Amino acid sequence: MPRLREVGEFEAIRRLARRGAAAGVVIGSGDDAAVLRPDPDRDLVATTDAFVEGRHWLREWMSPVEVGARLAHANLSDLAAMAAVPRWALVAIGARPDQELDELVEMERGLERALDAQGAVVVGGNLSAVAGEAWWTVTLLGDVERGRAWTRASARPGDLLAVTGHPGRAGAAVRLVHAGLARAEEWRPLLDAWIRPASRVALARALAATGAVTAAIDLSDGLAADLGHLAAASGTGATLERLGPEDALLDRAAAALGIGVETVRLGASDDYELLMTLDPARRESCELVCQAQRVPFTVLGTVAAESGRLTLDRGGQRTPIEPAGYDHFAG
Amino acid sequence: MPRLREVGEFEAIRRLARRGAAAGVVIGSGDDAAVLRPDPDRDLVATTDAFVEGRHWLREWMSPVEVGARLAHANLSDLAAMAAVPRWALVAIGARPDQELDELVEMERGLERALDAQGAVVVGGNLSAVAGEAWWTVTLLGDVERGRAWTRASARPGDLLAVTGHPGRAGAAVRLVHAGLARAEEWRPLLDAWIRPASRVALARALAATGAVTAAIDLSDGLAADLGHLAAASGTGATLERLGPEDALLDRAAAALGIGVETVRLGASDDYELLMTLDPARRESCELVCQAQRVPFTVLGTVAAESGRLTLDRGGQRTPIEPAGYDHFAG
Repeated sequence: MPRLREVGEFEAIRRLARRGAAAGVVIGSGDDAAVLRPDPDRDLVATTDAFVEGRHWLREWMSPVEVGARLAHANLSDLAAMAAVPRWALVAIGARPDQELDELVEMERGLERALDAQGAVVVGGNLSAVAGEAWWTVTLLGDVERGRAWTRASARPGDLLAVTGHPGRAGAAVRLVHAGLARAEEWRPLLDAWIRPASRVALARALAATGAVTAAIDLSDGLAADLGHLAAASGTGATLERLGPEDALLDRAAAALGIGVETVRLGASDDYELLMTLDPARRESCELVCQAQRVPFTVLGTVAAESGRLTLDRGGQRTPIEPAGYDHFAG
Repeated sequence: MPRLREVGEFEAIRRLARRGAAAGVVIGSGDDAAVLRPDPDRDLVATTDAFVEGRHWLREWMSPVEVGARLAHANLSDLAAMAAVPRWALVAIGARPDQELDELVEMERGLERALDAQGAVVVGGNLSAVAGEAWWTVTLLGDVERGRAWTRASARPGDLLAVTGHPGRAGAAVRLVHAGLARAEEWRPLLDAWIRPASRVALARALAATGAVTAAIDLSDGLAADLGHLAAASGTGATLERLGPEDALLDRAAAALGIGVETVRLGASDDYELLMTLDPARRESCELVCQAQRVPFTVLGTVAAESGRLTLDRGGQRTPIEPAGYDHFAG
């Protein structure tokens, strides 16, 4: 299998870039820039996310197709948190000359397929050589009805706080991997949450139609950290009565790791689930939407007035929640 | 001066990201994604470019502010080649924990100032830790009158081929640096072309208004390579009578390097100048625009019918031009 050094930059780009017609794409890959035709009635929503080899992906645990799909979901999840529809992506790659071209092509295909499943296409990119670890960055563009994007900044005291899915599972998988425990078959659902995450684009669109959601953020740093981001942006606090749905497997993983269940549920974890605040009067319509899409939906508590104060209240016993999450640069 | 390891990811992002109102920015940095409001009568133009430490920038030759500005121009130049107006940028950074925060902030400011001078603002980004070399990727969005973007693919036999500026100077500077010759004061204008390039956004907009330009590409790989890209995309060839404006300094640099003048003029060089094809009947209006903006403008030859055939014709003596440029992955 040829390596990048052997095929060269331009042949590699030729293999990586696909050309084809797609909605709103006037000129795709292959010119100095892509030319796109946004819908005149909608706002454009733009996010960028990067994956670094050895940090965001571990070769022995994820195939190139899975890494590409996961990178797609990291970006798709940001658009879901704005209630936006994904449309166009640009991909910048840093690759080592000794990497196999096929590995890059598989990663690109994994990325493209995951984007395609949500209606988005790759319209441009860049390929650079690196000496250190490989990296991929994706910039994803989407759109939303004008003025209707969700933000982190509009939660109101009294709103309900709710999450989708099983937050903490992806982080538990990473902890199991680092502890050398992850090969046991028991943990397969946790590993799946990390290796093959979903993102909540379709759910966000259906929830947006209910008008129930007042603010949203995607869970990519961990529940405590992302709750902290949302509360800080909104100038509110939060009082939680629970930290997610019942999850016996997550509890067992915490025990196996010798750490508290709350650490696993609150700490660093990139689940690509949604943390939302809701108008309490419209809770039922949200529950119905999530049931229809078979996505777990759990009300955790309520938005509190006191800015920055995050509290866990278990039957009257109150403890503060520390908004610590993953820090890329922590020693 | 604090290093990233000491200040942590979130404080670094706080220092790097600026918040402020800008045209068309509904929500800027600080949410899951940026929300932008494109002009309903215009197409969106999107490009992405990456700089890798030690390859696209050399610490001992460029200050962080200069690196940031140069990265801005690499992206601005792609939009210039589409006749687009720059508007919004997203920046993804891979930084080592031992890097000084101030260095990143200076690079960001250099980037922002160069973008701002062309009317564009940073609206979002991403910060990741790396163990290897640092890298920055920028995705730049702009707009252009609907259906009026320049492409590489629309050159017609008989059109004139023209370049702006002094192509080859940036590449000559890099060759002088690698040969250990670059400290001589004589080469300062070449070093400036490499360290502090311009890009041709304003010129492209003025040229677009003349209706003279039939195709365009920016010079980032080198004259021969980019001419090859343009000819391939258009299904044409090219016959050149010269390789750029008179440039005695470039000629002396070639002599000092012990290589041919044509190698310096045709080979790898990221000048961020424009290579354009023009309607011959409108040559004069292009010359007037370039004079008004004080940008050197040189007609090199004409577009030829035979696809892929690039020829240098010096007074009837014809030699083929090999479309070799910079390959990131070449050994």
